[in-house]
Parts: sequence; structure tokens; C-alpha cells
Amino acid sequence: MDRIAQINPWKVITTDVKDNKRVQESLTSIGNGHMGLRGNFEEGFSGDTHIGTYIAGVWFPDKTRVGWWKIGYPDYFGKVINATNFIPVTIRINGHQLDLAKDEVTDYSLELDMKEGILNRSFVWAKDGLEVEFNFSRFVSVDVKELAVIHIEASVLNGEAEIEMLPHLDGDVVNEDSNYEEKFWLERNRGLEPYPYLTTKTKENDFGTERFTVTTMMSNEVEGLEKVSSDESFMKVEETFKGVVSKGEKATITKHVAVVTSRDVEETDQVKEAHTLLKTATEQGYEALKQAHIDGWAERWKNADVVIDGDEASQQGIRFNIFQLFSTYYGEDPRLNVGPKGFTGEKYGGATYWDTEACILPMYLSITDEEVSRQLLVYRHNQLEQAHINAQKQGLKGALYPMVTFTGVESHNEWEITFEEIHRNGAIAHAIFNYSTYFGDESYLLDKGIDVLTAISRFWADRVHFSERKQQYMLHGVTGPNEYENNVNNNWYTNTIATWTLRYTMESLEKVSDEKKQELQVSDDELSQWQDIVDRMYYPYDEELGVFVQHDTFLDKDLRPVSALKPEERPINQNWSWDKILRSPFIKQADVLQGLYFLNHEFTLEEKEKNFDFYEPMTVHESSLSPLVHSILASELGKKDKAFEMYERTARLDLDNYNNDTEDGLHTTSMSGGWLSIVHGFAGMRTTQGELTFEPYCPTQWNGYQFKLKYRGRLIEVKVTEKEVQFTLQEGDALTFKLYGKDVTLEESLSQALEK
Amino acid sequence: MDRIAQINPWKVITTDVKDNKRVQESLTSIGNGHMGLRGNFEEGFSGDTHIGTYIAGVWFPDKTRVGWWKIGYPDYFGKVINATNFIPVTIRINGHQLDLAKDEVTDYSLELDMKEGILNRSFVWAKDGLEVEFNFSRFVSVDVKELAVIHIEASVLNGEAEIEMLPHLDGDVVNEDSNYEEKFWLERNRGLEPYPYLTTKTKENDFGTERFTVTTMMSNEVEGLEKVSSDESFMKVEETFKGVVSKGEKATITKHVAVVTSRDVEETDQVKEAHTLLKTATEQGYEALKQAHIDGWAERWKNADVVIDGDEASQQGIRFNIFQLFSTYYGEDPRLNVGPKGFTGEKYGGATYWDTEACILPMYLSITDEEVSRQLLVYRHNQLEQAHINAQKQGLKGALYPMVTFTGVESHNEWEITFEEIHRNGAIAHAIFNYSTYFGDESYLLDKGIDVLTAISRFWADRVHFSERKQQYMLHGVTGPNEYENNVNNNWYTNTIATWTLRYTMESLEKVSDEKKQELQVSDDELSQWQDIVDRMYYPYDEELGVFVQHDTFLDKDLRPVSALKPEERPINQNWSWDKILRSPFIKQADVLQGLYFLNHEFTLEEKEKNFDFYEPMTVHESSLSPLVHSILASELGKKDKAFEMYERTARLDLDNYNNDTEDGLHTTSMSGGWLSIVHGFAGMRTTQGELTFEPYCPTQWNGYQFKLKYRGRLIEVKVTEKEVQFTLQEGDALTFKLYGKDVTLEESLSQALEK
Repeated sequence: MDRIAQINPWKVITTDVKDNKRVQESLTSIGNGHMGLRGNFEEGFSGDTHIGTYIAGVWFPDKTRVGWWKIGYPDYFGKVINATNFIPVTIRINGHQLDLAKDEVTDYSLELDMKEGILNRSFVWAKDGLEVEFNFSRFVSVDVKELAVIHIEASVLNGEAEIEMLPHLDGDVVNEDSNYEEKFWLERNRGLEPYPYLTTKTKENDFGTERFTVTTMMSNEVEGLEKVSSDESFMKVEETFKGVVSKGEKATITKHVAVVTSRDVEETDQVKEAHTLLKTATEQGYEALKQAHIDGWAERWKNADVVIDGDEASQQGIRFNIFQLFSTYYGEDPRLNVGPKGFTGEKYGGATYWDTEACILPMYLSITDEEVSRQLLVYRHNQLEQAHINAQKQGLKGALYPMVTFTGVESHNEWEITFEEIHRNGAIAHAIFNYSTYFGDESYLLDKGIDVLTAISRFWADRVHFSERKQQYMLHGVTGPNEYENNVNNNWYTNTIATWTLRYTMESLEKVSDEKKQELQVSDDELSQWQDIVDRMYYPYDEELGVFVQHDTFLDKDLRPVSALKPEERPINQNWSWDKILRSPFIKQADVLQGLYFLNHEFTLEEKEKNFDFYEPMTVHESSLSPLVHSILASELGKKDKAFEMYERTARLDLDNYNNDTEDGLHTTSMSGGWLSIVHGFAGMRTTQGELTFEPYCPTQWNGYQFKLKYRGRLIEVKVTEKEVQFTLQEGDALTFKLYGKDVTLEESLSQALEK
Repeated sequence: MDRIAQINPWKVITTDVKDNKRVQESLTSIGNGHMGLRGNFEEGFSGDTHIGTYIAGVWFPDKTRVGWWKIGYPDYFGKVINATNFIPVTIRINGHQLDLAKDEVTDYSLELDMKEGILNRSFVWAKDGLEVEFNFSRFVSVDVKELAVIHIEASVLNGEAEIEMLPHLDGDVVNEDSNYEEKFWLERNRGLEPYPYLTTKTKENDFGTERFTVTTMMSNEVEGLEKVSSDESFMKVEETFKGVVSKGEKATITKHVAVVTSRDVEETDQVKEAHTLLKTATEQGYEALKQAHIDGWAERWKNADVVIDGDEASQQGIRFNIFQLFSTYYGEDPRLNVGPKGFTGEKYGGATYWDTEACILPMYLSITDEEVSRQLLVYRHNQLEQAHINAQKQGLKGALYPMVTFTGVESHNEWEITFEEIHRNGAIAHAIFNYSTYFGDESYLLDKGIDVLTAISRFWADRVHFSERKQQYMLHGVTGPNEYENNVNNNWYTNTIATWTLRYTMESLEKVSDEKKQELQVSDDELSQWQDIVDRMYYPYDEELGVFVQHDTFLDKDLRPVSALKPEERPINQNWSWDKILRSPFIKQADVLQGLYFLNHEFTLEEKEKNFDFYEPMTVHESSLSPLVHSILASELGKKDKAFEMYERTARLDLDNYNNDTEDGLHTTSMSGGWLSIVHGFAGMRTTQGELTFEPYCPTQWNGYQFKLKYRGRLIEVKVTEKEVQFTLQEGDALTFKLYGKDVTLEESLSQALEK
């Protein structure tokens, strides 16, 4: 565990310029759903840095290259691509170019203000008796999605300085994971009027996927400096401002940036659109733009903030989670989803993983408007045709949702994942169940959801085979959620979620309209085959241990607990060969337990406990999706210390760099883990059985916690202290729900002593 | 089955210019161990063609690119690279450029003469009353390894023609499997004096592997034409000859090419060396060069030819096998090995596979001098250090021989192969056993072989794990010879060859010198651990079926015979998704049966029969290594029709394009299959139990067959007819061996009636 940032309830603060620079950059990323960027320095940095600016939905298909091509491989790996770097402002003081990789500075502070959504940085630069204090602030506006604002002040504390500021746009960017340093952008256009701008377009590709054109434009307002020149060159536009600043005076620049893409505006109209945006912004002025942005964040925090009493590290963790999640996705654009690194890095590529259904939806159900959750489901419905294509490529019927995608077409490219990690299809089905039971409304299920369920069921029915020898159905050649094993047979979780999908689809089909039945054409033969699979599916189980077996031969392994590993061996994915990992008993993330989490209502407490006690000690939690599942189950099982340990691991995963990989970017899709560990775990909320239930307790490390919840038209505040739980109905009608298994009715407010 | 070439005992003949062009090119490849090339046209061809010229031991490390890098991956994929194309002679007739993709010609014939090692081509070109007959001949000399000769005659049959011939060298070549059409060669030098030449050098690479410099030079002798000019440009040197040829006259060109590489000659001396070679060659003249080459082939055929009576297709097959094998490797250069495609294509990359030990050595033991076989073993001994590195990359002790290599370092790059297909280590050990028992001489075993055996045993001992539950040793996470399954547990063959290696190593260690014992430092603890593994290894076995089980869950599959497949589904690797293949019961090549073949003496006939009858019907034989194993076992089991079917499949695999992939090149490493099917199969020869034994029979499709055999200083001719077998001792001392289980002594000759 590296504690890189200071503990602070609302801020991420570091005072070290260079150490863990890439981790710092990840932690201080900001975004507004439309675009975002890592915590890079405006003035440049000649040391090790990972410059990253990303635009939602803008990607490139990188051709798959393997030693031996096999039928069914995806053609490309879909990459999130670095877009025009719009923050640069080169700064010179008496001709010396400011560079914190080389210059010594004092009073250094880099602060991400999560309440306001602003990244601030300040320091004092001194040389030969000259002292200049610098203050940088920047934000990507949640008020105007195309707008980013960078504000820099240089205050001379001692002496007199000639200060130059050269704001520019740099389109000549490269992805860190690019092969042969291949670049993905072509210059289409550039100019200095009406404001300096660059228009870039993604290169042609072999696969006919959408190409994107992006116009990035800047307007710069200065005080204490004069404009000297405007220049343009390949992939670059720049302005130069200069002035002499005396002691007690300051020079300031406000760089307004508009990023307009072909996803919203045709290329021919982009310059005009960007100009309009910047003209308006410049007229409003820095303070007004900033206030609108802060107001936007205040509105977001109003119902989503979670307050923790007595533990600032926990408090910082949960706010960091929520801040980064909302920076990535707040549901405004139905074409988008939650990428694995948001706008904080390039690794993993792709825009959409099953993480959305497994981790994001369960939180968004409770804290955003119903439309946002519905939109996440509709996103998959819109990609049903592509999911059919993915299945066809394997020679299978029905729909196989992609492991990684931008468009619905699979864009990951390793066979052990794309062909085999098919349990993802179960998560897509489960999300429909989760949504329908949360809102108590089956209209989506019966109108659109059933299309998805039927197609997924058809996939499962074709993907199983019948073992004559065992007289049971099986699923061979799968990769379970535990990606530290590949190509296993009868992964218990996959078999379980497959038959659950078949059952849920059959139940739902009974309720759909005749018209829909006609449309879906599910034959009696199909139904009886599905029923036969449900009746005769094989689930590996061990009588002696009383546990569901992860897959057929798991128990033959050299079973050892994680505690047998030396600290220097962890994380194993950075220290062990892949061969050693695959053969080890160590589990990357919840696998059997993922099933007990998703289908929580179908298993007894005893079953949950036996499996938890067997599997958790072998789990290394090197997937960010793991701790939240374990925290929630541990809470249910009364394992409070384990639940808290797992809470910290999910909520502070990146802040404390648990997996030693935060330098690649944040684990955005599992940022919901902290919230879920609190609400589903500590507060024990469940919703899938048609009613709202709670089993709250307070972790001994805390004095209390509170959160708000949207539920079927109500807004409910839940406050838990060491002794009691208090519910306050802030909006909506009275509601009856279960507390510790007993019905209670909430009219205005309701308090009760804790029973756990 | 496509029968592309005509049936002919000594020739591969096609009379079709364009159909199956790439397959034709593969089938008409020629080589001399040092270099070789596909059957491309000298005058060029504007239609689909795969131009390929390769030099033994010249390769390039192509960087591995994967979605997710995992520890232990090989850094690069080692590629056989296309070298300077030295055959081109552009031809113009009255200004019209000859191009068989567009021109209509008559009397077309392309003939590979396997007896002489010469590729001949002829046709008549006609237009507007002008008729010209062309005759092309080329060979790569087995007399002077750096020399290739192309001879072209243009005879005017009718009319008068201005004929131009432009012999040139083209260094601007690309590999078909190149990413982004990346080129692997840089031009280092070119010139027109003393003869036109090009010097090219492989590009720098990130891995510090050897770079190669190659000088290719030509000297052209013409009759009936005059030299017009010499020209050079980037990666090209060319001469132009022109003349007017009347009816009844002809123009001829003899293009002599020398290919000198930095493997033999330093770059600074290459031009001089090439010049010396060409000067000598030109002085000798075409007919003398050709005769020396033909004499070389006659010498090769003298003891290696197999004569089949009564079946020209079979006869052609076995000669094609031997011709192509000898064209690839005749044992002159100890740094070389037998690449999977020889000089006939680029696919698969690499120079050395376990095919060498599994298929090549068993044949070369009998038909070449002992030094050649020994050299194949020494090749691996020389790479022992690199094999240790391969194991270390997986975090394992001992030596892991590479799946694919040029230098001993693994240069394949798929984890399911490199990490998992570890049975290859067993083949390396088995080759030492095979060699030592064949020659009845343990000096190699006890001097060098034991180093390899000990290192391989140390690998096995570290790679197994002990299953507490089963109280047995296991090998998880392997890929058996059947590459249509990956990452299986307890592949019977791998477990079996692993403990066989341990046993053989322990037996051999008892015989080594004290000095060697001191050097190897095998501790008592190690020996007792090895013994424990031998005693407690787990071998999957099914009581009910009485078969060794391919791996733990194989019997749970949807078991079906290959006969249940539709013809259009085959080969399945060209028609099914990889997912479907992996989950299917269909077996690419001998797996359990590979063990019964290698360790033939350790199993009963009943065991062999039960397993053969169970596995063969599920085997698609889509690896070229499969049919020979099945043919030999079928012969042993008296399944004569199956043995013959498999003989044809191996001997005529490429001639009849069984696997629909001959266009990529020939299956060179398994070209020994025909010979082994005859000698070890039909004649039932065995040598591993310390004596020579035979159990000959004659396939009903043949009248008889005969072959020669080198065995411990003797040269023995074996002739089998429908009724009897006749042995003739052509060289060496009298020999006692077993015939149908009874001792017989061969002094001069010996005949006996067939008993099978």
C-alpha cells in the first residue's frame, strides 16, 4: 500500500513534485463525461510522464496480430486514443523555461478539489533573488460539456521578471500502447482565426469502423501580458504572450478550450460551433464559468454524497470513488458507457465491459434518475444485432455480448477471453432482473429486455453440450470471472448464471404480449430444451468440503492460502509468470462468490459461509471487481473486519495503489465498490425480491455513516450511528420496507436500534 | 483431395498454368540445404503468386504483440524471411513482356525432376504468326551450395522476333505475414562490377539477435543476344540483352547466381567470394555445372531411394518426400535444423520444432551417416543454456526446450503453446534414447546426452505438483500433441513421457563417470524426489473403456467420430471457429497414441489396440505429424487398410493437398512419414530394445517394395514382395537380427516367406 495523497475529506493533495508522478497524474484526473484528462502539467514536464487526453466514444480499431490466426478471432483490438493535448502553456521566466522536472520549487501543492471538480496547483519558483508564485487551476466544465478552462497566475514575490506564456494545442500525440509508435490521427485543418484551432481526424482503418473528426480551439485571455504572435505548424497552433511583471504584481492567463467532435457536429460546422462556444465562454469570464461548474458539482453531490463519521481515510475514499465515476459517466449521452479507465489512461482499451452491469448499474439504480439506469440497459439492447454477430463468429446461435466493445462488436482479441469468458452474457441478463426488481416495473423487461434475454438463452442452449457419460449438460472451454485460470470446464459460476438466465427468460416469456411472442418465435421445442438444460445441468460440488467447486479440476490443485505467499510475490500478476499463475490456486477475483453475490437470494447463509471461508483465503483480489463482492458477502455473514478490510480495498484501491498499477489509470468501473460495500454491505440493502430490505450495522472503525437513496419515487436518507439507524423520507410517499426482516413503514422519519 | 500433379514415378508434372498456382509453386520448390525457393516464374507473373526465396539460418525476430502482456511471454516471433529474389529474367518478344497470367500459351509443362533435382518448364508462345518455344531449367546446386543456375532457351518456331532478356536481382522483397508490410532488409551495397550484385542486411531489432548480411551476385552468359546495358537502382541490379532471332534459331541465357552470407563469410569479403564462385562456375559452363549437380543427386538417391512395385502414386509420394527432405537438410551444416516449411514457404516461422526429434531423426538414423544424426543431437546440446533460460522465464528449474527456435531461445509467442506444450521436452530426451539404442553406443549419452536429460528431468520435477487430495503428482496446464485442446490437466502423454524421462535419466546417471557425476551435481534428495514422482504420478485411465484418457475431462466431451462430420466441415481448422474446435472431441494428431508410438516397447498389443480403436476414429489428422504414427501403429496391429490409408496421407500429403494448405508451403518436417510408414510400419522395423527386429508385410495395394538401411556399419537392402522378404547385405559384417520374433543371421542374403 502506497499512501501517495494526503488524507483529506474533500481533496486529493500531494506536495511531492516528482515521486510517483504517473500515479499522481492518474489520481488527479478530471473529466465531465464528454472528455477528460490526466493530471499533467500545463507548462510541460521533461521527466517521466504519461500525457493523456481522451474524448468519450472516440477510438481506433487496432488490427489483431497473432502468430497463428484462428477462425473467430476478433479483427481488432479497440483502443481508447489519446486526443489533442489542449492544456499546454509553455512558461518562460526571463527566458528560462519552467520545468518542474529540473527546477527546484518550494511550497509545492497539487490539489484535486472533489467538491468543486477543480484541479489546483501552486508553488514558488526562485532563482537569483527572483521569486515567482504560480497558481494553476483547471476544470472540464460539467455545465458546458465541450468546454475546458485553464487559469494560471504568476505573481512576482521578489524582483522583476519578464514572463512569457505560450498557450498551444498539440495534435501530434501518440498512445503509450501504440505498436511502432504508430499515430492514430491525421491533421485535417488548422488555423489561427477566429481563434487558434486544430481539426484532426482518425486514420483510415481496414475494418470500416467510424472515423472521428475533432476540432479543438482555444481562446486566451491575459492580464499583465501582451500578445506577441500567433503561430501554426504541423499539428500545432500557438499564441505567445509576454510582459514584465514587478514585485507584488501578477500575470494571468485564462485559456478556454472547446472540443467539438463529429459525434455531435459535422466536420464542416465544427469550427463555427467551437467559435460560438468560446465566444460565449470568454464573454462570461473565468469566475462565472467556474461558478457554473461548481454549482453543477454541488447538484451532483447533493443526493449522492456519503458522509462517514470518524474516519477521514474512508471518507476520502468514497468521495474519490463518486467523483471519478461521475467524471466519467453521468448518463447524459445514451451512446456512451463506463470505460475501464474512464479518462485516466489507455490500458484495457474499449468502452464497455461487463463491469457496467456488475458494478455500475447496482449503484446508479439508487443515486441517479431511472432514465440513466434504463439507458445503460438500452445501450445493450441497441447492440443486440452485433451480439448476434459475435455469436455467429463462433458458429453459435443467439447473442454473445462482447467482453470489450465500443459498438457491440467484440474488440478484445485474446481467444481465452473473447471465446471463453462467456459468463459476461449472464451479467447482461442479470442487469435486466436487477433493474426490473428495483423499480418494480416490468415494462422494460417485457418490451425490450425479453429480446435480450431470449437471444442470450439461445446462446446458452447452443453453447452447452450433453455429456453422454455423465448424462448431464456441461459448459466446457470457459474462463470464469477468475481470469487467473483459462479454458476450464464447468466453471460453477458460468453454469449457474447460464441456467438462471434460462429460468428467468422462461418465466418472463410467460408474461409477454402475444405480439412479442410472435416476434420472438420461441418454439415449444426450444422451451423444452431449455427446461431440460435447467433440469440436467451439471454443477461441480464437493460433498466432503460442502462447497461449489470453481471448476472440474480445481480441487486437484496445490491448494494454499494467499497468506502462504511472500509479500514480494504480490501482486502475483507483476511477479509471476503467466504459467505459474494459471496453475496456482490463487483466485484473481470473486468467482463462485460472484454467483452467491448476484443470486444472493437463491442460497442459504450456510452455503455462503462455507464457500466464502473456502475461497476468500485463496483470493488475491487483483481485479478491482473483487473486493466489493467480498465486502458485501462478509457483511452479510457478520465478518465485519473482513468487510471493512474489503471496503478499504475497494474505496481506496487507487488512492493507496493496492495493486501497484494506478500509474496506468484509475479502476473506474469498480469505483462503485465503496458505495456498494456501504449500502449493500454495511447497511445490508437488498432489492431483488420485490421489496426493499435493510440489515444495517456500523463498522467498529467508524462512528457512523449516512447516504441517500432514490427508490421508486422516493428520496430516502439513511443515517447509521454506532447504536441506531435513522431513515428520513426527503421526497415521495410513505413506504413500507423490511428492517432486520420485519416490516416497518417510513412516513417522515424512523429510528431504530441496530440489531447487528 | 486435389490431385494437382500428374502421377509419375520420378517427376512432379503439371500442365495447367494458372490453377492452384500457389500449390504448384510449393510443390515445385527446390533447395540444397543452404538455400531454396518456391516454383516461381523467372519472367514474372502478374497474377496471384507467392514469391519466396529463403536462406537457411537467416531470420528476423518479429516483436510479440498481444492485448495484455503477461510475464514469461517470449519477446518475439522468429520469422523465416524472404531474401533477395535471384531468379528474375524479364523477357520481351517484339516489345511484348511475357506474362503467363495474361498470355495464352500452348504445350505448357512444368516439371520437377526429382531424380536430377532440376525444375524444368516449357511452352510455346504465339502471336500474329510468330511462334516461340521457351524452355526454362533451374537448380540450386548440391555440388556448390552457394550456387543457383537458371537456364532459358527461346527458340523461334515461326517468324522472326526481337527478343530481350533482362536478368536481375530484386532485394526489395516482403514477407507475406509481415505486419504493415514491414520489410526486414536494408540495402548495404550494390554494384555492377565485377558482376552485378546486391548486398542486403537485416534490420536492427530490439532483441540483440544476430543480423545477417547477404550478397547475391549474378553472371549471365548469353547466346544469340547482345548485351545492351547494365543498370542499378534501389535494391535492384539488372542487365539487358537483346537480339533478333529467326525461325529455327534460338536465344539462350544462363544466369549463374551466388548467394554468400555472413553466416559463412564476413561482409567485407562477400563480393570477392561471390565473384570467385561465379568466375569458376562460368568457366565450367552450364552442362558441367548441371552434371555435377545431377551426380550429387544420384549419390543421394543411391542408398536412400525406396522402390515401390505396382503403385506409381505411392512411388511418387515417397520420392517426393525424400527429395524435399534432402533439399532442406542433408546434414552438412551443424548449425542448421529442419524448418517446418523448409525453403517452400514462410508460415510457422522458426527453424526447429520437436518434429526433428519425432519424425526426422528416426529416418535419418537409417539413411545418413551416423554423424548427421549425432549432429542433430549436438544441436540441442549446444542450446542447453538457452533452454535453461526458457525455463527460468516461467520461474522453473532445469531446461525447457523451445517449441520453435532459431537459437535455442523460444521464438513462438502464444502462451498456450510456449508455456504449455511442454511435452516437447520429452521428445528431446527420447531422441537420445533412440540414437543410443540404434547405434548400440552410449558414448554420446554418457558424455553429452546426460547433460540434457538431467536438465530436462529437473524441469519435470519442478513442473509437477502434488495433489494432496489425490495423493499423486500431476501436470496441470499443459497442451498435449493434440493442439486442438489447450490448457488441459494431466495429458496422459505428457505425464507418461515426463516419468519416462525421469526413469531414463536415473538409469543413465548410474552409468556416467565420476567426473560427470561431479559436474552434474544431482543430489540424493533430487533422485529420491524423481523416484517419488515416478512412483506416484497420476495417469488418467478409464476402467470401463480400458483406455488411457487423453486428459482429465476428455471423456466428458460430446464424443463423436470424424465420420459424423460433413465433408464441407473439413479440415475443421479452416471451417470451424477455434472455440468450436477446442470444445470438440476431434483430435488434431496422435496424442495418447504418440506415447504408444514413442514408448512402443512398454505397452501390450491389447493396450495399443484398445487405444487405437478409441482415438483414431476421432482423429482428423490435420497435423502432418499424425498419419505416420497411425500408419505404423496400424501396421503393428494388423490393420493393413488403415496403415495404407495413413501411408498415402503422409506420403502424398502435399501432392494431394489433403489439408488444403499446401499453398503455404510443404510440410517438410513430416516428409519422413512415408519412409517411416514403410520401414517401421510395413516392414515393422524396431531398434530401441538393443537389437534390430522386423515384422514385414506387403500392402495388398502393392506388388512389393524395397529400401536400404544403414545399421551399425552395415548397408542392408530389404526387398519385400507379395510373398517373401529378402535381405541383402551390401556392406559390412554379418548380422543377427530378429525376423518375426526369431533370430536370423544375414551373411550375404536371406529370403523368407512373409508371415503377416
